[in-house]
Amino acid sequence: MKITKASIESAAARIAPYIHTTPIMTNKSINEQYGLNLYFKCENFQKIGAFKIRGGMNASLQLTPEQLSKGVATHSSGNHAQALAFAAKMLGVKAYIVMPESSPQVKVNAVRGYGAKVTICASNQIARETTLQEIVDNTGATFIHPYDNDEVITGQATCVKEMIETMPDLDMVVTPVGGGGLLSGTCLGAHYFKPGLKVYAGEPEGAADAVLSLQSGKVEKAPYVNTIADGLMTTLSERTLAIIKAHVTDILLVSDEEIKAALRLVYERMKIIIEPSCAVPLAAVLKNVDLFKGKKVGIILSGGNVDLSKFKEWF
Amino acid sequence: MKITKASIESAAARIAPYIHTTPIMTNKSINEQYGLNLYFKCENFQKIGAFKIRGGMNASLQLTPEQLSKGVATHSSGNHAQALAFAAKMLGVKAYIVMPESSPQVKVNAVRGYGAKVTICASNQIARETTLQEIVDNTGATFIHPYDNDEVITGQATCVKEMIETMPDLDMVVTPVGGGGLLSGTCLGAHYFKPGLKVYAGEPEGAADAVLSLQSGKVEKAPYVNTIADGLMTTLSERTLAIIKAHVTDILLVSDEEIKAALRLVYERMKIIIEPSCAVPLAAVLKNVDLFKGKKVGIILSGGNVDLSKFKEWF
Repeated sequence: MKITKASIESAAARIAPYIHTTPIMTNKSINEQYGLNLYFKCENFQKIGAFKIRGGMNASLQLTPEQLSKGVATHSSGNHAQALAFAAKMLGVKAYIVMPESSPQVKVNAVRGYGAKVTICASNQIARETTLQEIVDNTGATFIHPYDNDEVITGQATCVKEMIETMPDLDMVVTPVGGGGLLSGTCLGAHYFKPGLKVYAGEPEGAADAVLSLQSGKVEKAPYVNTIADGLMTTLSERTLAIIKAHVTDILLVSDEEIKAALRLVYERMKIIIEPSCAVPLAAVLKNVDLFKGKKVGIILSGGNVDLSKFKEWF
Repeated sequence: MKITKASIESAAARIAPYIHTTPIMTNKSINEQYGLNLYFKCENFQKIGAFKIRGGMNASLQLTPEQLSKGVATHSSGNHAQALAFAAKMLGVKAYIVMPESSPQVKVNAVRGYGAKVTICASNQIARETTLQEIVDNTGATFIHPYDNDEVITGQATCVKEMIETMPDLDMVVTPVGGGGLLSGTCLGAHYFKPGLKVYAGEPEGAADAVLSLQSGKVEKAPYVNTIADGLMTTLSERTLAIIKAHVTDILLVSDEEIKAALRLVYERMKIIIEPSCAVPLAAVLKNVDLFKGKKVGIILSGGNVDLSKFKEWF
């Protein structure tokens, strides 16, 4: 499948009954302090507390009745788990979610709260994949990957489309990058709905695979993985890299200290709860103020699902 | 002065250029969990992060040019300090704010950030009052009390007026009560703009003066003062009690544990930052679910100015 303008439009219409049109917030005090014009697309207020419902819902809604009758499956410790569990609940089908034993109890509870069957496995990639494969083999459920999936990417593209519709004069948009689902979707959404809209991404120094992959042109591993932005530890796929390479303006690295400072700024000034991963684009903008000065800059606040017991480590 | 429908309407028009019309949020997950219909008026997104700007701005805007030329003054460790400092900045006049040495540095910085002259004094009522009196004597500045002031109460009344305009079918509204400025203003706003709208207040058990005062009919002291809701430790005045007595439906007590549970619910489900004082009305509603079932219940989220280092004590 090729992701087209029409397929993003169809996705937007398809998922509309299930998601929120999230508000765009501005903050005079941050804008004045830095001399910027920032517009925050609040996907932390989205259903399930994150943009991931867009992709998860779009992919689930495209399954055949035969496929749906056997349910959906994925492995995830984070927001994609909730997205798929919620989508399955909306569609009245089963969701099988493999979660590593390191997952915060609050997230496991949330996924179970949507009625999904959670299987806990060891906290490593092989355990996650083999556990999932076993479930898929036994149940016939369809595996929906968190980002290496065209329908998921198409769903994520609806976010920037929505933002462009509200703010046709947007000059730039900035997202975080982990596996690249949101970034590749944003690249395509910008490309189709506002050609010329520059797309930047922020990436943690402690998970710097995307910036390296963009340089070398092939999927690279991060030199080391250690960051407060726990949603961005994943690696690009061939699929997401190909789209990002073709359309992204740049990927900007930020340190955990810079992420924490941006997180604090959002909490203190905007009075909203976001995940550390979600503070990465703002951190990138504040580190490169000159790049964004005089422009209308959209920042996608990707999600707000935090374990409140983590606050003591952040502030 | 008597607070009338017309004076609240004038206040709303007077302060409109300086404040936000704050959004009303709903949360499906909280509503479903408790079987309620709650509508949250988000004054945490208000200018200065709290409803107090309404009263502070309204009072400041009524001063004569002669009075304004000498500035405004108050003592406050909290949101009224920021409100008056911001109002003075808007009007280009001086603000003298007496703050107890126990005030969080972040609040002192915020008040100074608006250009106010801050005088630090010992953390007791007598030191606050004598320090303020000295400043007023020396400067001729006008003292604007945080709640024992008709113009301040009139300003606070604009919040429920705004809410009624957006939601004419509201059945009940719930506010916190400390000194009674917001509660008395809400009582009058409801009385004039939607007669029959029931007004409840939530009060911490550890600052239970209002509930006692309502019983006895005269201003009482709280049996003890010790609560996480640090904005509600003040005592009603004759002025606020008279209004509250005439119009309030009931005042409901909640424990600090109940306040913390409500605070957590708002952070986790609504993804917004509110002060502990601000969680008191929701705590009161969740403790008395049957009272509010089947009704459209407005909750005024009074403010979101928190010292992030406090999170570790709350969660």
